[in-house]
Amino acid sequence: MRVLLLNNRLKPHTVHMAEQMETKLKGMGAQVFIDNGVQKPGPVSIDLLIVLGGDGTIIRAAREYAQSGVPVLGVNMGRVGFLSNIASNQLEEKLERLLAGDYSIDERMVMEVEVCDGDRPIMTVGGLNEVVFRSTAPRIIELMLYVKERSQGVYRGDGLIVATPTGSTAYSLSAGGPIVDPSLQAFIVTPIASSITHRRPLVIGAQHPLVIKPQDAREAVICVDGQVHMEFEPEYSVRIKRAANPLRMVNLTGALLFDNLEGRLRRNEIQ
Amino acid sequence: MRVLLLNNRLKPHTVHMAEQMETKLKGMGAQVFIDNGVQKPGPVSIDLLIVLGGDGTIIRAAREYAQSGVPVLGVNMGRVGFLSNIASNQLEEKLERLLAGDYSIDERMVMEVEVCDGDRPIMTVGGLNEVVFRSTAPRIIELMLYVKERSQGVYRGDGLIVATPTGSTAYSLSAGGPIVDPSLQAFIVTPIASSITHRRPLVIGAQHPLVIKPQDAREAVICVDGQVHMEFEPEYSVRIKRAANPLRMVNLTGALLFDNLEGRLRRNEIQ
Amino acid sequence: MRVLLLNNRLKPHTVHMAEQMETKLKGMGAQVFIDNGVQKPGPVSIDLLIVLGGDGTIIRAAREYAQSGVPVLGVNMGRVGFLSNIASNQLEEKLERLLAGDYSIDERMVMEVEVCDGDRPIMTVGGLNEVVFRSTAPRIIELMLYVKERSQGVYRGDGLIVATPTGSTAYSLSAGGPIVDPSLQAFIVTPIASSITHRRPLVIGAQHPLVIKPQDAREAVICVDGQVHMEFEPEYSVRIKRAANPLRMVNLTGALLFDNLEGRLRRNEIQ
Amino acid sequence: MRVLLLNNRLKPHTVHMAEQMETKLKGMGAQVFIDNGVQKPGPVSIDLLIVLGGDGTIIRAAREYAQSGVPVLGVNMGRVGFLSNIASNQLEEKLERLLAGDYSIDERMVMEVEVCDGDRPIMTVGGLNEVVFRSTAPRIIELMLYVKERSQGVYRGDGLIVATPTGSTAYSLSAGGPIVDPSLQAFIVTPIASSITHRRPLVIGAQHPLVIKPQDAREAVICVDGQVHMEFEPEYSVRIKRAANPLRMVNLTGALLFDNLEGRLRRNEIQ
Repeated sequence: MRVLLLNNRLKPHTVHMAEQMETKLKGMGAQVFIDNGVQKPGPVSIDLLIVLGGDGTIIRAAREYAQSGVPVLGVNMGRVGFLSNIASNQLEEKLERLLAGDYSIDERMVMEVEVCDGDRPIMTVGGLNEVVFRSTAPRIIELMLYVKERSQGVYRGDGLIVATPTGSTAYSLSAGGPIVDPSLQAFIVTPIASSITHRRPLVIGAQHPLVIKPQDAREAVICVDGQVHMEFEPEYSVRIKRAANPLRMVNLTGALLFDNLEGRLRRNEIQ
Repeated sequence: MRVLLLNNRLKPHTVHMAEQMETKLKGMGAQVFIDNGVQKPGPVSIDLLIVLGGDGTIIRAAREYAQSGVPVLGVNMGRVGFLSNIASNQLEEKLERLLAGDYSIDERMVMEVEVCDGDRPIMTVGGLNEVVFRSTAPRIIELMLYVKERSQGVYRGDGLIVATPTGSTAYSLSAGGPIVDPSLQAFIVTPIASSITHRRPLVIGAQHPLVIKPQDAREAVICVDGQVHMEFEPEYSVRIKRAANPLRMVNLTGALLFDNLEGRLRRNEIQ
Repeated sequence: MRVLLLNNRLKPHTVHMAEQMETKLKGMGAQVFIDNGVQKPGPVSIDLLIVLGGDGTIIRAAREYAQSGVPVLGVNMGRVGFLSNIASNQLEEKLERLLAGDYSIDERMVMEVEVCDGDRPIMTVGGLNEVVFRSTAPRIIELMLYVKERSQGVYRGDGLIVATPTGSTAYSLSAGGPIVDPSLQAFIVTPIASSITHRRPLVIGAQHPLVIKPQDAREAVICVDGQVHMEFEPEYSVRIKRAANPLRMVNLTGALLFDNLEGRLRRNEIQ
Repeated sequence: MRVLLLNNRLKPHTVHMAEQMETKLKGMGAQVFIDNGVQKPGPVSIDLLIVLGGDGTIIRAAREYAQSGVPVLGVNMGRVGFLSNIASNQLEEKLERLLAGDYSIDERMVMEVEVCDGDRPIMTVGGLNEVVFRSTAPRIIELMLYVKERSQGVYRGDGLIVATPTGSTAYSLSAGGPIVDPSLQAFIVTPIASSITHRRPLVIGAQHPLVIKPQDAREAVICVDGQVHMEFEPEYSVRIKRAANPLRMVNLTGALLFDNLEGRLRRNEIQ
């Protein structure tokens, strides 16, 4: 059994936790590797990934490890997250079940975002929550949305969000999008402050790749999961498709992905 | 080849059209039956259903014939509809292709709405667009939503809509719901004038049946597709699941179901 | 000093409270009258109105007494209200200040709703929160809005709310309207589930009377403050204007009307 | 009679129009001055300001001349604007009425935006539409709103708009704000993509100055009327109050400011 512990080296309590867990797991006979964001294990195949950190750390883990198909356990190290499955003080008592593989798996769709300059791909990156196209100054930009190579019309406003169901409770929700069941294979297209006031959020089956092209979009940016930023040049186009593999999240409680959503949203707002 | 023509006997131009088409189709060697809403054919198996009328007539047809799996062609007899595939003046030139089966099929998810008084089922009805739970007087009612037998919390307000993707462009849209791709198997749960202002539209995978129960809902009604109404008594509960078979709609143009949605919405609003 | 105590005879604790306060106030030299909803004082002029009850009781008091200009103190007898100024357990310690007139006054705009059958007025009633026009069954109705005798176009959907600033935190908020400062003299026009999706809430200066006429509105109702209901017949029209006098509410704390609005909204939703 | 013609030197047709009008007006006995954005008349008192250009040019004119109280006529030189009163081809026939003062005046509230670094004012600028506080990257910022020195709580999200009634049909509308009658003296506070999903637009009487302070707002900008931009540093605070004088707009048609709003919005969206 090979276990990879992923932590955030800038947050000392996650470093400390990783050390503690390493000792425990080794004592239970597991092989342990650590990825602290800088030091990474070599190209070794692993059986379980334990992420010590908030949603941001899990998102980073998804980008790097989701396509390998390894089961991922998110351990909540601070404020309540949407992606973590258990609290840090519960981890120790679950280690045996984890090593025995005694859990179910929730699959979360991942998106693959490919930015092209004309026809030439210049970046491909995975996203767990969303890709955002937005003006930098508070100025109207115009974007075209294509589904199956057919234009769905222009979006005028601050920009556009294309989210996964997992991302539907993040930025897309703030911009007025619906909450979408993670069991659905879908993209949520949510305009940000659209000047075409009857433009509405769309939920599109993820079997269709989407393409976004700027029509009039000087000084705009592309941002994936709040972590990867790049300028959105007028000659760029962005192709968004479902990644080949979903993120496979460890579920120890049997909870529905939907459970207590309202409660999480409210706590999130009050905090 | 057995063709059923369905029209609305209260709209003379659909009666007239049915007579014309009957003659044509017979001349082409088809057997023709007519359902005008009162006179109905006996229990005969048919190969094609042609609906002459607006969205309301197609919705009625779906309720009666969708589960038989027969392909349905909606012929638009008046203002532009969301469900009709061709205009009435285009029908004649398409008859040959129709009889030859030269078309593709778009599947539209249908819902089955079961109303129970305690444990006893008292009505089961199919729905193509939505089921609505609403107060009659402008008064707050409280409804509970259950997914997989777990409560998703209370909805306070004028009521609640549970829509199919097809219905996402109808009443649910007016109440603030997203537009959902008909290729998705999903329910859209949209609150109407919710007094809990952060209650948001949900899109839930249709593999989960939903249950709605009144918590405090005197003087409320249940309404399916704007056509079937009944009072919603405090001891009722309503179970909503995906019907066994989708509505199979004839697609002669190869158009994406999404095509020109914006245009249809706008025309609809201006008319 | 003549004080009128208004309570809700159906809520025993308000009856009890009224008796206690009557004794106290008499002991302090005041003349005391009681209105319990059925027994009412004769046509006597009063100097202070103390309302023992929730927002509903204060709304009823406003309808009956606002135009007399008497200062009104709302005493919160249960869950937190938007209109009450003090909690019931604080009343006793404030009696001296009340009798001495040691308080400031917050003015709240009141609306006058006049329903006409053709040209003939058939009902005139005051409203503190809102007048609602809504379909009874979940069916689209069409209403015309006129400002200064000019049409502002048709509203298609479940109906329309015309609210005062005080009412902007009640039903209008649930339907998507803004929160409006009670110091403004304005009507808030908020569509309910509008099928014309770009119809937006309007805030109109209250110097303009508004007129609402049904265009296609069978089976609709008019409802003032959730308390006065009548059917809305196709030949009716409703004229809404600002009442001659505002409701004059006693303010003992110097609090801004806006203070802690968010907190009140949240408590309201959680309760 | 002294008339100032204001045009946009970068738009040749407005330059040409200014020259034509200058000749006409001189022939009618008026003294004429020209402000083309670079060349400006000296400090001369004028009786009428004619703005040749779109809403952007009128907004610039308001910033420079509103406080002088001079009547302003907006002449629409291109696409339909919200602020222009007549089309360019109608101007010539109206010159006589203009010189005779045969028109009414619509007053539009103007805001004064004062940016302070700690206690030290570093910029004061007039605004006709709105002041926007927004993140540059798509990242959450936190802003505090104060009314009468009392906190109204934190706004988390992309940012915040404080608009005048005139600006309520511009950016604020896109972000979900209501349409507000220009006759009202009010500020409209509209959150942009608020992560606190029950944060709602507020309409606040303009007798209260508002103060906005960043709580956590690195990399944010302040933008007035889409024309004046500056970085919003963590130690800044912004005070927004009603300007001493409104913009006085010439009304030649007697039209209500509200007239045909829907039509203008729709044209704007389609264009």
